[in-house]
Amino acid sequence: MQHFQIRTDLALEATESVRRRDAEHMSGVQLEEYDALEDVHISKVIITSKNAAKSMGKPMGTYITLEAPDLQECDEDYHRDISEELARQLKSVLPDINEEKSILVVGLGNRDVTADSLGPSTVDNLFVTRHIIKEYGRQAYHASKVHSISALVPGVMAKTGMETSEIIKGVIKETQPDIVIVIDALAARSTRRLNRTVQITDTGIHPGSGVGNHRNALTKESLGVPVIAIGIPMVVDAGTIVCDALEKLSDEYDEGKTPLDYFRNSADTQLHNMYVTSKNIDETTKRLSFTLSEAINIALDMGQDGRQ
Amino acid sequence: MQHFQIRTDLALEATESVRRRDAEHMSGVQLEEYDALEDVHISKVIITSKNAAKSMGKPMGTYITLEAPDLQECDEDYHRDISEELARQLKSVLPDINEEKSILVVGLGNRDVTADSLGPSTVDNLFVTRHIIKEYGRQAYHASKVHSISALVPGVMAKTGMETSEIIKGVIKETQPDIVIVIDALAARSTRRLNRTVQITDTGIHPGSGVGNHRNALTKESLGVPVIAIGIPMVVDAGTIVCDALEKLSDEYDEGKTPLDYFRNSADTQLHNMYVTSKNIDETTKRLSFTLSEAINIALDMGQDGRQ
Amino acid sequence: MQHFQIRTDLALEATESVRRRDAEHMSGVQLEEYDALEDVHISKVIITSKNAAKSMGKPMGTYITLEAPDLQECDEDYHRDISEELARQLKSVLPDINEEKSILVVGLGNRDVTADSLGPSTVDNLFVTRHIIKEYGRQAYHASKVHSISALVPGVMAKTGMETSEIIKGVIKETQPDIVIVIDALAARSTRRLNRTVQITDTGIHPGSGVGNHRNALTKESLGVPVIAIGIPMVVDAGTIVCDALEKLSDEYDEGKTPLDYFRNSADTQLHNMYVTSKNIDETTKRLSFTLSEAINIALDMGQDGRQ
Amino acid sequence: MQHFQIRTDLALEATESVRRRDAEHMSGVQLEEYDALEDVHISKVIITSKNAAKSMGKPMGTYITLEAPDLQECDEDYHRDISEELARQLKSVLPDINEEKSILVVGLGNRDVTADSLGPSTVDNLFVTRHIIKEYGRQAYHASKVHSISALVPGVMAKTGMETSEIIKGVIKETQPDIVIVIDALAARSTRRLNRTVQITDTGIHPGSGVGNHRNALTKESLGVPVIAIGIPMVVDAGTIVCDALEKLSDEYDEGKTPLDYFRNSADTQLHNMYVTSKNIDETTKRLSFTLSEAINIALDMGQDGRQ
Repeated sequence: MQHFQIRTDLALEATESVRRRDAEHMSGVQLEEYDALEDVHISKVIITSKNAAKSMGKPMGTYITLEAPDLQECDEDYHRDISEELARQLKSVLPDINEEKSILVVGLGNRDVTADSLGPSTVDNLFVTRHIIKEYGRQAYHASKVHSISALVPGVMAKTGMETSEIIKGVIKETQPDIVIVIDALAARSTRRLNRTVQITDTGIHPGSGVGNHRNALTKESLGVPVIAIGIPMVVDAGTIVCDALEKLSDEYDEGKTPLDYFRNSADTQLHNMYVTSKNIDETTKRLSFTLSEAINIALDMGQDGRQ
Repeated sequence: MQHFQIRTDLALEATESVRRRDAEHMSGVQLEEYDALEDVHISKVIITSKNAAKSMGKPMGTYITLEAPDLQECDEDYHRDISEELARQLKSVLPDINEEKSILVVGLGNRDVTADSLGPSTVDNLFVTRHIIKEYGRQAYHASKVHSISALVPGVMAKTGMETSEIIKGVIKETQPDIVIVIDALAARSTRRLNRTVQITDTGIHPGSGVGNHRNALTKESLGVPVIAIGIPMVVDAGTIVCDALEKLSDEYDEGKTPLDYFRNSADTQLHNMYVTSKNIDETTKRLSFTLSEAINIALDMGQDGRQ
Repeated sequence: MQHFQIRTDLALEATESVRRRDAEHMSGVQLEEYDALEDVHISKVIITSKNAAKSMGKPMGTYITLEAPDLQECDEDYHRDISEELARQLKSVLPDINEEKSILVVGLGNRDVTADSLGPSTVDNLFVTRHIIKEYGRQAYHASKVHSISALVPGVMAKTGMETSEIIKGVIKETQPDIVIVIDALAARSTRRLNRTVQITDTGIHPGSGVGNHRNALTKESLGVPVIAIGIPMVVDAGTIVCDALEKLSDEYDEGKTPLDYFRNSADTQLHNMYVTSKNIDETTKRLSFTLSEAINIALDMGQDGRQ
Repeated sequence: MQHFQIRTDLALEATESVRRRDAEHMSGVQLEEYDALEDVHISKVIITSKNAAKSMGKPMGTYITLEAPDLQECDEDYHRDISEELARQLKSVLPDINEEKSILVVGLGNRDVTADSLGPSTVDNLFVTRHIIKEYGRQAYHASKVHSISALVPGVMAKTGMETSEIIKGVIKETQPDIVIVIDALAARSTRRLNRTVQITDTGIHPGSGVGNHRNALTKESLGVPVIAIGIPMVVDAGTIVCDALEKLSDEYDEGKTPLDYFRNSADTQLHNMYVTSKNIDETTKRLSFTLSEAINIALDMGQDGRQ
C-alpha cells in the first residue's frame, strides 16, 4: 500500500513508516532504544547525513522520544520520575550545560485554547532567575553556578499580528541568550500517541509544526543560537484521523488507492482548520505542563533539590 | 445506502435523514421554514405525536433552528441582529413569559475546555436580578414587571463527583424557579454546522447530549419545571467525522456496507473520548457566548434597551 | 486606648485583643499552643461556654490556627510538610472520620478575582470520588474504606443572583453528605498574617466573613450537617488597614480618640467596597490552594500515598 | 499643610496639588477643560517647559484626562460614547495618523492578577491587521488606507525574568513600528478616581508607574519611536491610602506634621507590596478593557463602522 505524506510532528512516526523500508540499515541514521523505567521507553534517532534527512523527511539532528503509557494518570511520584528522566535526556542535548549559560524558554501556542496551551502553561511553572541575577548577582542563590533563565509566551499570530519567530528574534537580539528552549503542543498522526509521548530534539521547530499556526522556523539557522524543542502530541489533525482510518480500512480490504486519494483532497479542504483532541484535555494539559516545567527546572539545576 | 445511528444533538440533522424518507408528509411532524434576515434561516420542527417522536428519534416538542453562515464572523451589528432574532424565537417557547417569572439559567459544560465552555461563558455575561429584587424589590429597576433571573454554572461530574442534574435539582428545590433555561455546547454530525447553528427547544436536555458527559436528563419530567435548552454545535465526535467521511466515500463509490460496519465498531472504541473542533475555538466561543447572553437578556427584558 | 470592633475572620486576632484583658484565665476558653514543625506554630482555641463566646465575639467551637511565616515561599517539600500537618489538624475536627463518610467540599469565592479565588482553586485540585463509587463501587479504589467526596464551586451572588447558602442547601438536600468542608479566602485585621496563617474551625462560616460578600451563615444550624471551615487570610479590608495605622499612631502619640472615631466613620463609608492585597497574589493563591487541596486529600485518605 | 510626595500616575492629581499654588498662571503649563458629553469631563494639561515639568513632577508633553463617574456602570451605549470620545482624544496625540502607519499596541501588566490585567485584556479585544496585510495586502480590507496593527502582551518580570522594556525593544527592532501604544493599569492617589478616569499621554510610561513593577521607562527616548500611553487607575497603593487618610485627618485637626512623617516611613516599609482595589474588580476590568479596545479600534479606523 502506498504511504501518504500525512502530517506528523513526531520523528518516531516518521521512522515508523521508514522502518517498513528497512530503515534500520539506512546509513546516516542511528537508532537507539531502551527502557528507562518500567513502562517508560526511550527512543533516540540521530540523523547524521543529508540523504538520511531527506529519506526521513526530518532535518539532521537528534530526536529523543519518551513513551509512557501512564503519562495520563495522575500519580505524582510517577510524574516526578518522568520529570527526572526527561531532565536527563534534555541535558544530553543542551550544549555545554555544565558551564553557566543564559537560557530563554519559550512557550509556544494559544493560552486560550486548551489543547494548544501546553507551552504557555509550562512556562507558568518555570523557575526564572535572570532578573534576580541581574539585580543581586548569583550569590542570591548561594551557588557557584547559576544559569540565567528567562521565559517568554509570545502568543499566536492571529492575536499579535506578528510571526512568533519575529517576537522571539527580537527578544534574542535584546537579551542575548546562549540557548533557546521552545515548548509546543504537537500534532501526532496516531491517536495512540496523544498525551503519552514526549519528544526532545536539538533541531528546533520547523514550519507547519504544532497545534497552532507557527509557520516560521525556530532553528539555529533562523535564530542564531541553538534551539532545543520539547513537544507533546496533544491533537491529531482531523484530516489525518480520517486518512488514518481510511488507510487502515484499505489495508484490510485492499480496495486500491483511488477512493482514498479522492478523499484526501476533500479532507484537506474541509478539515484543515480542525483538530481532534481528548475530552479531558484540561486535566491532561495541567498535569503534563507541570511535568515538563519540573523537567526543565531540574535540567537547569532549579528543581526542588537544586534550589537554595 | 444504509443510515447509521450517528450521534447528533441537532433535531435538524435528525430530520435531514428522515426527510429522505418523505418526512414532510409524516403525521405528527410540523415543519416550518423561512428566512428571518438575509442569510439567516429559521427552521421550526414541532413533533406532536409519540409515533413521530419515535421515527425522528427526538422527544415530542418544538425545535427551532437558526442557521447563519456568518455567525463566525466578528461583525458586531450582525451579532446584535442575531441576538434579537434569537430573543424572538426564545420568547415563543418560554411559557407565559408576558407575566413576571422566576427563571434559572444554567450554563452546562467545562469552563476549562475551550470547546465545552459555551454554557459557562454565556452565563458570565448574563444580567441577573434575583438578589437585587429580593433586597430592594422590583422598584430597583423602575419597572412594573421584572423577571427574577438567577444563574448557575454547576461544573462537570469529573470535577464535582455529582451529576449535573443533582446539583440543578437541589438548587431548584431551594430557589423554586418557574422556568429553567439550559445552555450547552452541542455535538453536531456535520462539520458544516459547527459554530453557525443555534438550536432552541422546549424539550430540555437528554442523556448523552453535549460536548461533555452530561448523562442525566434535564427535562420537565426530571426537574419538575419547564426546561428550555439552547445549544450551538461546537464539536463533532471524532468517530462521527470518520463515519461521515466513510459514508460520503461509500455513497460515491458504492462499496457496500461491510467495511463501514466494521470500521464503525472500531471507531466507537478508539475515538469515543475524542472530539473534533475548529482551531479558532477561543474566538468563536467568546463571540457566540456573547450573542447568546444578549439574546437571553433581551428575551427577559434585560437587554440594553430594556434596562433602566 | 479603646479597642475598635475591627473586622477580622481570624479567631486568633479576636483572642489577641481579649488576651490583653487577661483572656487566658477566662473560663470557657481553652488555649493550647505548640510548634508542630520548625517555624510552624499551632494555636488551638476552644470556646466552650456562651459567655466566653460572647466575650470573644466568636461562636462556641474549636479554632485551630497554623502560623507559618514561610508559607509564602515556594519550597515544595515545605508545603508538603504543611499539607500533612494541616491534614492532621483537619482530621481532629472531622467528626467520626475513621468511618466511611460522604463529604461535600465547597470552594467559596469569586474565581475571577485573584484574591478571592482560593476556594475555587483549591477545589480544582481536589480528588473527588463520589461519581466513581456510585458507578463502580469502592472496589474501584482497591480499598475497604473510601470516603465519598464531592465538590462544589457555587460562585458569588453578584453573578448567580442566589445566596451561596441557597445553592449549598439545595445540593445538600439532593446529595445528602454527612459533612461539609468549606474553603474561603479570609479577611485579616493585620497585614502581618496575610498568606501565612491557616484557620480550621468546626463552627462553619458566619455572616460577613470572607473576601467576598457571603452573607448567610454556613453552619450546622443552617445546613443541618457539621460544617468545617478552612480559611487563609488573603486580604485586609481597606478600612481596617487605615484604622490599624491610626490606632498604632494613636498608641504612640496618645492623641485621644476623637479624630480616630471621626475617621472610622468616614473610612467605613468610602472604603467598604475595597480591600488591600499583596502584589504577588497570583503566585500566592496558586501555591496555597495547592497546599490546601493536598491537605484535604491526605485527611480524606486520597493523598499521593493513599491513592491506589 | 505640607504636601507629601505621594505616588500617583495621574497628571491630573499632580496638577491638583500644584493648582493650590496658583498653577493656572504657571508659565509652561497650558490647561484646558470642557465637558465632552453629559457627565464626561475632559482635562488637557500640556507641559511645554522644563521648569514647568520640574514643578509638576511630570515630563514635558500632553496629558489628556477623561473623567466619567458612570464609567463603572454597565450601560453599553454609554461605553460606546466613551469609546468614541477616547478615540477622538487618542487621535489628537497619535502623530501623523492620517497617513498609513504601523502601530504596535502593548498590554502591560499581569494577566493573572485581576487588578493588573487591564492591559492584557484590552489587547485581547484588539483588531490586529499586520499579518493579514503582510500576506494579502491592504486590499484584504477593501480600503485605500489601512494601518498595520500588531499587539504584544510581554508579561511581568517576575514571570519572564526580563524587563518589560527589553521585550518591547526587541520586538520594535524586529518589526519596526512607527508608533507604540502602551496600555496599563495605573495607581491613583485617591480612591475617588478609581475605575472612572482615563489618562492618555504622549510621554509614554516612566519608572515606577503602574500596578505592577514596570521599572524601566517606555518612552520615545528609550524605545526610539513615539510612545502613547493609555491608563486607567485600578488600584491605590496601600501606603498611599493610609497617608491620604492621615492627611485628611491632619487637615481637619491641624495636628502638625510629626506623627504623619513618622507614619509615612513605616507605611512605606510595611505596605509597599500591597495595594487597594475594589471588590468588583473583575467586572470593572472586563468592561473597561472592552471600552479601551474599542477606542483604539475606532482611532485606528478598525471600529465597527470602519471595518469592511
